[in-house]
Amino acid sequence: MASIYGKNLTVSVFGQSHSAAIGCVIDGLPAGEKIDPEVLTKFMQRRAPGQNRYSTPRQEKDRPELVSGVTEGTNGEFVTCGAPLCAVIRNTDCRSKDYDKIRDLPRPAHADLTAQIKYGGHQDVRGGGHFSGRLTAPLCVAGGICKQILERKGISVSAHIRSIGEVEDSPFDPIKPNAQMQLLDTRDFPTITPEKGDQMKAVIESCRMDQDSIGGVIECVVTGVPAGLGDPMFDGVENRIAGAVFGIPAVKGIEFGAGFEVAKMRGSENNDPFTIENGKIVTTSNNHGGILGGITSSMPIIFRVAFKPTPSISKKQQTVSLSKNESAELQIEGRHDPCIVPRAVAVVEAVTATVIMDLMTTIK
Amino acid sequence: MASIYGKNLTVSVFGQSHSAAIGCVIDGLPAGEKIDPEVLTKFMQRRAPGQNRYSTPRQEKDRPELVSGVTEGTNGEFVTCGAPLCAVIRNTDCRSKDYDKIRDLPRPAHADLTAQIKYGGHQDVRGGGHFSGRLTAPLCVAGGICKQILERKGISVSAHIRSIGEVEDSPFDPIKPNAQMQLLDTRDFPTITPEKGDQMKAVIESCRMDQDSIGGVIECVVTGVPAGLGDPMFDGVENRIAGAVFGIPAVKGIEFGAGFEVAKMRGSENNDPFTIENGKIVTTSNNHGGILGGITSSMPIIFRVAFKPTPSISKKQQTVSLSKNESAELQIEGRHDPCIVPRAVAVVEAVTATVIMDLMTTIK
Amino acid sequence: MASIYGKNLTVSVFGQSHSAAIGCVIDGLPAGEKIDPEVLTKFMQRRAPGQNRYSTPRQEKDRPELVSGVTEGTNGEFVTCGAPLCAVIRNTDCRSKDYDKIRDLPRPAHADLTAQIKYGGHQDVRGGGHFSGRLTAPLCVAGGICKQILERKGISVSAHIRSIGEVEDSPFDPIKPNAQMQLLDTRDFPTITPEKGDQMKAVIESCRMDQDSIGGVIECVVTGVPAGLGDPMFDGVENRIAGAVFGIPAVKGIEFGAGFEVAKMRGSENNDPFTIENGKIVTTSNNHGGILGGITSSMPIIFRVAFKPTPSISKKQQTVSLSKNESAELQIEGRHDPCIVPRAVAVVEAVTATVIMDLMTTIK
Amino acid sequence: MASIYGKNLTVSVFGQSHSAAIGCVIDGLPAGEKIDPEVLTKFMQRRAPGQNRYSTPRQEKDRPELVSGVTEGTNGEFVTCGAPLCAVIRNTDCRSKDYDKIRDLPRPAHADLTAQIKYGGHQDVRGGGHFSGRLTAPLCVAGGICKQILERKGISVSAHIRSIGEVEDSPFDPIKPNAQMQLLDTRDFPTITPEKGDQMKAVIESCRMDQDSIGGVIECVVTGVPAGLGDPMFDGVENRIAGAVFGIPAVKGIEFGAGFEVAKMRGSENNDPFTIENGKIVTTSNNHGGILGGITSSMPIIFRVAFKPTPSISKKQQTVSLSKNESAELQIEGRHDPCIVPRAVAVVEAVTATVIMDLMTTIK
Repeated sequence: MASIYGKNLTVSVFGQSHSAAIGCVIDGLPAGEKIDPEVLTKFMQRRAPGQNRYSTPRQEKDRPELVSGVTEGTNGEFVTCGAPLCAVIRNTDCRSKDYDKIRDLPRPAHADLTAQIKYGGHQDVRGGGHFSGRLTAPLCVAGGICKQILERKGISVSAHIRSIGEVEDSPFDPIKPNAQMQLLDTRDFPTITPEKGDQMKAVIESCRMDQDSIGGVIECVVTGVPAGLGDPMFDGVENRIAGAVFGIPAVKGIEFGAGFEVAKMRGSENNDPFTIENGKIVTTSNNHGGILGGITSSMPIIFRVAFKPTPSISKKQQTVSLSKNESAELQIEGRHDPCIVPRAVAVVEAVTATVIMDLMTTIK
Repeated sequence: MASIYGKNLTVSVFGQSHSAAIGCVIDGLPAGEKIDPEVLTKFMQRRAPGQNRYSTPRQEKDRPELVSGVTEGTNGEFVTCGAPLCAVIRNTDCRSKDYDKIRDLPRPAHADLTAQIKYGGHQDVRGGGHFSGRLTAPLCVAGGICKQILERKGISVSAHIRSIGEVEDSPFDPIKPNAQMQLLDTRDFPTITPEKGDQMKAVIESCRMDQDSIGGVIECVVTGVPAGLGDPMFDGVENRIAGAVFGIPAVKGIEFGAGFEVAKMRGSENNDPFTIENGKIVTTSNNHGGILGGITSSMPIIFRVAFKPTPSISKKQQTVSLSKNESAELQIEGRHDPCIVPRAVAVVEAVTATVIMDLMTTIK
Repeated sequence: MASIYGKNLTVSVFGQSHSAAIGCVIDGLPAGEKIDPEVLTKFMQRRAPGQNRYSTPRQEKDRPELVSGVTEGTNGEFVTCGAPLCAVIRNTDCRSKDYDKIRDLPRPAHADLTAQIKYGGHQDVRGGGHFSGRLTAPLCVAGGICKQILERKGISVSAHIRSIGEVEDSPFDPIKPNAQMQLLDTRDFPTITPEKGDQMKAVIESCRMDQDSIGGVIECVVTGVPAGLGDPMFDGVENRIAGAVFGIPAVKGIEFGAGFEVAKMRGSENNDPFTIENGKIVTTSNNHGGILGGITSSMPIIFRVAFKPTPSISKKQQTVSLSKNESAELQIEGRHDPCIVPRAVAVVEAVTATVIMDLMTTIK
Repeated sequence: MASIYGKNLTVSVFGQSHSAAIGCVIDGLPAGEKIDPEVLTKFMQRRAPGQNRYSTPRQEKDRPELVSGVTEGTNGEFVTCGAPLCAVIRNTDCRSKDYDKIRDLPRPAHADLTAQIKYGGHQDVRGGGHFSGRLTAPLCVAGGICKQILERKGISVSAHIRSIGEVEDSPFDPIKPNAQMQLLDTRDFPTITPEKGDQMKAVIESCRMDQDSIGGVIECVVTGVPAGLGDPMFDGVENRIAGAVFGIPAVKGIEFGAGFEVAKMRGSENNDPFTIENGKIVTTSNNHGGILGGITSSMPIIFRVAFKPTPSISKKQQTVSLSKNESAELQIEGRHDPCIVPRAVAVVEAVTATVIMDLMTTIK
């Protein structure tokens, strides 16, 4: 079950960068839920390539066809029918010849070598195969659908670029992030503070000029989650989100609430005091990131995800020739994002939304 | 399946802090593997309480009884027989009256409130119930057994305290950590640099004096892992380790290889160049932490885990009275670790060893 | 996950016939459910050995100790607390020397040979090890607890001996079995028609005299199940019950509703007509056994399970010597049931109750 | 995970009878395996409708498009690449108006009513939606691919019609079925004895004339399976095959080896004696159906599956009107198989092949 996640709601992802199609099967969606195709398309465009010069020029219409799991509603929308929903996205703009060298010269920081070992050389090397960032498009179909359902239950998932290189955006307000979340809806470049976004763009542009790439951090928040979701130990909300988020290519770390900062904190600082607000128990700070003992507290769920710089850079790099078993130089050609972080914001939201939706299916 | 993890090797954990017993069932161990009870006991003592003044004075003989899954070997050792192995640890030193207030006054940063909501007030509140750090003892049984089996396959798992508060230990050498790992075997207090350990002890002692607690970071390394373990997307080694590690109470973050630092790095810095050493393909740096595309590269697996400060502190704290639905003050009595990090080192090793052992069962 | 079953409610079974203990961990029970230990003990006695001369004389007090997952209620009962419940049953009356020959001479129709191959000779051969019928005692703990919870929800699970050898008991009324179910509560030997029970006892006694054994069929019914439980295709109620029931040693077949008889029926005979009774949609016959498309219809769930004759017979049998790799004769000594079917009735109920309880956890 | 099965090899099925497409995702296939599209098409034609007058006249080209998981080999064949394989089959010949009445008048013995309850009326009623027998086409893609891989490992899966109505075909030789299996390869109508096939055809034709339908039994055998596959208790070969086979619509029973006949047998009859043949341990009879303790013995795996008569018959039937909440008559129009058993033979083989392939992935 390598490319499947979820428990009562499962998402099974298929496809390679240059296969006929990519897509996913979502099994366990509640029946009778409306899916607005325009809203879904708009969500997917947030990760689509070729939108601006900060991302790869590859042009693809990532229009998913929902081949099953829905019936047509009366106003052009789709309605889930309880059957597994399969979304198929055709791959159209494939220039496979760009990748000829890869079979012999594994690209540093890519899965070329490990896939070669695991699959005995039978892996699809074109465009990174099943390990391509392109496989995050189906994740966005699943997450975009779950987001629509969650919104109707009062649950919102939103993310922004927390940092790129050394440039840091303002953090989410861990108690009341709602105004920031609404603001992000209006942004082309998803930062809370637009000036920080401009600085980030400049960093990315500078990396492109240097034939290099840059990493970043995405921060995600979920509001409106009822208390009591998640189970102890290995089925907690943190375990489930982490287990899913590491499925996004290039992720190297995740932290919840105060995250790694807790290591420097004293208990008296870190412990979030309880109080009562409008008759409801809340905490006055949110170092716990909305999760205690793996279970939601009703405070916003907050976490941050570290993305490594795009491995594909045009600079000359050291690798080995598999055929000659000797050191070699590699210069990657083709089209590559100098920074995948802006496009990955929607992907983090998507994966998170499916995990929350899965947790919601067992609520009584 | 809240308290179960693993795929082909599963560990099912049971017990509460003050139930008759705690323990685990390990299903899927290979048959014919020897378990040295002395080595297991020694490993478990690394997390046992009451060993020194840096941890809780609760005295417990964490001697697990292996009630199934083994037969007796000819030299007093146990031999796995293919059946599920159940280890039972009796709870003996339970002073339950210490916890009388908790039912009404949930402790900040504990799972008291979320458990109250999830279980409708039926949760076992004594000593934190199933959410207690005591439940890491069964994890150490499982991990201690897996470590013995892995060692015979040339795979070693080792961890140290990377930081407590602001004090940082030397990091593992990400390429050749073996000498450091051997050194750690000889340490009572698991730091690579003994002086750093002394400083950490001073920080912990100072927190105890202040009726406070402190967090920290544990760094773990695994050597000898063959290339090709793990599967793409959601069954990768990072997903599996993260999904399991968040099962350890108090964990708030995890990062692999260069971790969150990758966010500030350029591709040209982060990409680990391939080269050939003794006829084998290796990388000359290890920012990828031994995992590319979710699959092991044969380089050491390295990751760091952030632990929050022990929530139980003697200082007065703000909480709410569930019965009166109003704010209240709480002063926790009883015995508590000012810092659980030293004891958690063995737990991180244990959880990691079971995940690696699980991955090894599908190797062909 | 060999000895684990269930999805949101899992039962992990451990132990060997002659290990220190056997038992199970039940993860996912709802919190706040009362468990009456007397009722549980009474249920377990229905499968206990040594009760009458129709079963093995092995004397064991199958008193499970609930070492976790419960707190003590005010009237001596236990109350589930949401944590995994572990039940431990000590093995006391082990006469291991009876089984000395088995290691070399695999018993026909037992798992001796297949276990030898699978575990490379490291399996626990004493008393059949993990493959022993004794492992059904923990199943009865899990099922006995689930039965108590289900009863309070108006769901009853009941089974009887449908046949032993050529002797057939009256079948359950597939529409209104309630009176029969109540009757069975009063039976020492669980048949609907007592005379048939007497004839069955005579058959068993005759097999014992011949140093032989005999098989039989158990029929199980579940009433009060709400419509809509189960999921399409592979998570249907039939798939789940079948997947669990084959975990009971000696089961070789299962059929639902009209079962194998459907093969001889025409659609016009087999199709159960719908009608309305007291404002509720019901069927006027129940060939579908309460399940259509894998989903419950609210009609009684009915199925039958075929048990092979006890493989352990005292008659001389043909086998092979593993050490000499040649044909050999085997005469099994020791204590054996000439027919396990009477004791297995409770086991079938138990396994069914856990499956239904698991399905109920996802009801909204 | 309703429509997913398997453990290390999973098959996720999607689609409805009249959705844009149906298909499946197969995750966990070994890399480097060749798939001959001609052989696959030929296998699929064995279940395709409209082949002869014994089945529905619906005409569909069940040509699956393998949109992912493969690369193209040098001779027009496909080669698995380790990524999840998705097969898409377009639905073309949909005459949806045939099914207008169903929303109000649930068809007896169909899932119409239970789906209505489960999905709150949002299910896709056209052609039975996700519950349609059409969903067995994707199962045949998965199974057809697994069969090709298994054949290269010396493992063959073959099935025949064991009975239709009262007409019984000769049974498989449980020890040496190979000659019969080869014979079946040449049959248009899969019976071992051609005359029995002719009689079955006559029975089916007679049912068609009467606007009725008829059930039957399919017997399946697997040869070449190594000893030691499967795990104890709930992960045994019987549990896995049964859990998957009940995913085929219309299945009401399954029995292994001597099956329900064991209930009438004595141990001395049922116990299969071990002997040595060509240096290998075998049994001289095969009442155990190749499985002991859930684990393969290397003898042929044999089981039989009971199929109910097609629920869709043209005869007038009693049902209820959901809108009026009163009794009603129903006369089903449209095209229906009077007997699905001949087409289901390939489906039983297919499901079995995927289960065996899944078991083979954990072999070391």
